[in-house]
Amino acid sequence: MARILTGVQSTGTPHLGNLLGAVIPAIELAKSTENESFFFIADLHSLTQIKNGNALRKNTINTAAAWLACGLDTNKSVFYKQSDINEVTELAWYLNCYFPYQRLTLAHSFKDKSKNLKDINSGLFTYPLLMAADILLYDANIVPVGKDQLQHIEITRDLAIKFNKHNGDTFIIPSPMTDKKTRYIPGTDGNKMSKSKGNTIDIFLNEKNLRKQIMKIKTDSVSIEEPKDYENCNVFNLFSQVASTSEIEIMKKNYINGGFGYGDAKQLLFEKIIEFFNISREKYNFFQKNPELVISELQKGSIKAKAIAKETIERVRSKIGY
Amino acid sequence: MARILTGVQSTGTPHLGNLLGAVIPAIELAKSTENESFFFIADLHSLTQIKNGNALRKNTINTAAAWLACGLDTNKSVFYKQSDINEVTELAWYLNCYFPYQRLTLAHSFKDKSKNLKDINSGLFTYPLLMAADILLYDANIVPVGKDQLQHIEITRDLAIKFNKHNGDTFIIPSPMTDKKTRYIPGTDGNKMSKSKGNTIDIFLNEKNLRKQIMKIKTDSVSIEEPKDYENCNVFNLFSQVASTSEIEIMKKNYINGGFGYGDAKQLLFEKIIEFFNISREKYNFFQKNPELVISELQKGSIKAKAIAKETIERVRSKIGY
Repeated sequence: MARILTGVQSTGTPHLGNLLGAVIPAIELAKSTENESFFFIADLHSLTQIKNGNALRKNTINTAAAWLACGLDTNKSVFYKQSDINEVTELAWYLNCYFPYQRLTLAHSFKDKSKNLKDINSGLFTYPLLMAADILLYDANIVPVGKDQLQHIEITRDLAIKFNKHNGDTFIIPSPMTDKKTRYIPGTDGNKMSKSKGNTIDIFLNEKNLRKQIMKIKTDSVSIEEPKDYENCNVFNLFSQVASTSEIEIMKKNYINGGFGYGDAKQLLFEKIIEFFNISREKYNFFQKNPELVISELQKGSIKAKAIAKETIERVRSKIGY
Repeated sequence: MARILTGVQSTGTPHLGNLLGAVIPAIELAKSTENESFFFIADLHSLTQIKNGNALRKNTINTAAAWLACGLDTNKSVFYKQSDINEVTELAWYLNCYFPYQRLTLAHSFKDKSKNLKDINSGLFTYPLLMAADILLYDANIVPVGKDQLQHIEITRDLAIKFNKHNGDTFIIPSPMTDKKTRYIPGTDGNKMSKSKGNTIDIFLNEKNLRKQIMKIKTDSVSIEEPKDYENCNVFNLFSQVASTSEIEIMKKNYINGGFGYGDAKQLLFEKIIEFFNISREKYNFFQKNPELVISELQKGSIKAKAIAKETIERVRSKIGY
């Protein structure tokens, strides 16, 4: 049985792109697999960019609420807050002492972030070693990551191998798992949906505001009467992410036949999204009204995670001399 | 009442230079003062250079044994092991997120160390932020430091001021205390006594080996009969560090009168050192045979330190959003 560990960014409520591209597939994998799944809200990482206590707290609750609303089973998976387990910062220090400074200066992600962010702090620089600690602390075997994170897994593996060689077997060597067929979810402007591009569809908004976002999706300016190009239409693409095969076929015909406007298509997309996320939206709203339940779920996970973290850290400490 | 915090390097058993220049004055200050004194064995810092578990453990015990042997009162002072309080690594992460990366690259001590050390790891680079956490975690008012550490205190102050400004009063702003009249203790070759120069006198050695070290002290080659220059003699200088005024006067006369060889002077120095450190040497040997007593003293201190650390970290966490 392998242990799969996934860090969940907590930069805000996940949008449609996050949900279809990452959250729902991860939850499905955790449900179906015989493996153990660990999910953590990466709120220590968030501190590199979010310097507002209320915003950070709200993001954590909203992110966790979204995962729970989408069906994450906290009895089968360990779902916890990174900041609840301070052994991770302890291990990160040990790993800092084992990792060459020069090599850390070569990390791509820091270079990339340095170009785009205003607040370029030391946490951003040493973040790969906190990530290594996240993984090694829980004896994770498999870490699902995007290609931009592959270098961090290499760093983690090299650290674990070096440490084991020097101190005897201590860490599990983790492997990355990159999804070859990540779904491309277009935003309202046709580019990849992304918070930073302001082109998101936020399915946990109330109906009125959600409808507004959908009505803003860019289309071409073909008249109602004319046949339309469904293949290059953002509305159609989004519809096909959430609709059944037969529903997609009917929509295709609407486009080809003409006499069907983009307003109609958007209305159908809106209705479909509401239907698809009906239960999730209800649950999310329930959690919004009862944040203490979200906190309690995370605490339940933190207790399980803490027990494992303590074991690992004791193993490490006895090796390095504490 | 001010709180004075002192980090104790644990790179091995302190030598005569450490004891006379730092350990004993710090213990005397802690005894005499109305202030609260905190002393911690900086064993997390040691990990940047010591990658051998047994050596690290032994250094910690030997260092702590030396401080206890020289009269540190653990009822009056809080004496603990840095690595027992993992809140310090947690706070260090938070401070990392609040400190500009570029500014950390300008720290002198890292540049200096990078020139002299082989193992230039990320821990060495981010060390100033761990030191800041050491200080801020315990609400220290005063931090006795050498001039080479003044920049780290500046970093700590700036971090505390910035954090307080952004999040409301959270940290005490610490002040450095530099000793203007640090005693210069010459080594056996006349240069400043230092482990790295191999010119130390290790007063906790057995008598035979301690005598050997003292007999190796460099002198000029003036014959027994001739008068000698006491002012520029290492043996005399060392003698005057541990002898009384009247004993020093007698020794001066021996030098001036002649008919008194360097062998005689060294023998008197040896006897004086044994006398001066008599009780400390006995205690040290006792602790060497009973290391569990050293560990228990440190644990006692760690319990006190942990209670304060937990309070501070909760104050910080509620501000930043955990």
